[in-house]
Amino acid sequence: MAIKIYGIPMSTCTGRVLYTLKEKSLDYELVPVNLATGEHKHPQFLAKQPFGQIPVLENEGLTLFESRAISRYICDLSPKGEPLYGKTPEDRALVEQWLEVESQNFNPPISTIVFQLVFSKFRGLTPDQEVVESNLKKLDSVLAIYESHLASQDYLAGSFFSLADLSHVPYLHYLINVAKKGDVVTSKKNVSAWWEKISSRPAWQEVVAAAAAAP
Amino acid sequence: MAIKIYGIPMSTCTGRVLYTLKEKSLDYELVPVNLATGEHKHPQFLAKQPFGQIPVLENEGLTLFESRAISRYICDLSPKGEPLYGKTPEDRALVEQWLEVESQNFNPPISTIVFQLVFSKFRGLTPDQEVVESNLKKLDSVLAIYESHLASQDYLAGSFFSLADLSHVPYLHYLINVAKKGDVVTSKKNVSAWWEKISSRPAWQEVVAAAAAAP
Repeated sequence: MAIKIYGIPMSTCTGRVLYTLKEKSLDYELVPVNLATGEHKHPQFLAKQPFGQIPVLENEGLTLFESRAISRYICDLSPKGEPLYGKTPEDRALVEQWLEVESQNFNPPISTIVFQLVFSKFRGLTPDQEVVESNLKKLDSVLAIYESHLASQDYLAGSFFSLADLSHVPYLHYLINVAKKGDVVTSKKNVSAWWEKISSRPAWQEVVAAAAAAP
Repeated sequence: MAIKIYGIPMSTCTGRVLYTLKEKSLDYELVPVNLATGEHKHPQFLAKQPFGQIPVLENEGLTLFESRAISRYICDLSPKGEPLYGKTPEDRALVEQWLEVESQNFNPPISTIVFQLVFSKFRGLTPDQEVVESNLKKLDSVLAIYESHLASQDYLAGSFFSLADLSHVPYLHYLINVAKKGDVVTSKKNVSAWWEKISSRPAWQEVVAAAAAAP
């Protein structure tokens, strides 16, 4: 039986999981969750995910939530596809380090900006420009450190594309291609080159195409 | 050569790493970082940790930062001590799930409360009671879900103490024992019982004793 993912193609966190599955060449079935009707807050969904958030994975009796935990599980599930943790225990440690930087330093400002400029309208809200500006400054400081780091290596954890790089792509995609706030990336030579590499991979292009084709 | 940890005993993130090392029965040397003189922002330290934060691990040529990444690395380093990822791939997946809940849902409100009520004074700031109250409400909502979850199992990921439980301890310790805002825990039967179990372990008691004895 194929892996089931409950989520929607336009969700950044669902996108993280789908990108991982495609890099690992694993089949899956995407089961849509209707956020507009609050399906994610219904008892049937809360039994799978008590916090009422997407995505959720089901596979061989296991129910799993939190996109970064799902992506880690997918990486460990199969030796097929891209080795997203690298090859050695030290590679894996550095992938985990940069996954945590993504989660703790990068995600708070970028998710706030993208919520304000892209997703807030679905809740009938008006973007708060002050919040956008202050978080763009925070994001710029974080990416300035990435700029130095990427001067000596192609990817965050070393010379290989990893789960840490992948995990940055969904929010950067919305920031650059939808919110049109890509200056914070394009103003930095090494971060720009990194973004080109991590967003042009066939696996991500397939995720974007599927999201565009979704009803 | 022993594992080196750059940090201070009273730091919550250093505490997470020390607790993990003690559960895994691994020796280490704690190298103090003088935050008061800004040692964590000096070039020598920034070469190890470009974001200027503690803790940092050094072991056999590897330099690693981000406390949760360090703790994961320590778990994978040695089969000695407590099996903090459980025994099966499914155990590990559920440990990662609850580590992410800790990081994404639990940590933002509790770290804000503890900063306001405990650490802000070291920066000459006065606690913002409105921020404290709104974050206590958020934390209460998160722990209400833990309360239901812990009705059917002793620990977050199942019947075994794991890295996910451990990772909650340093901030809960400050919330309950220093900020004296433990109501949010003691008002919940299952969360209370869980807190007793995860905070009374000898490994954590040693971390607390070492912090109390620090200069």
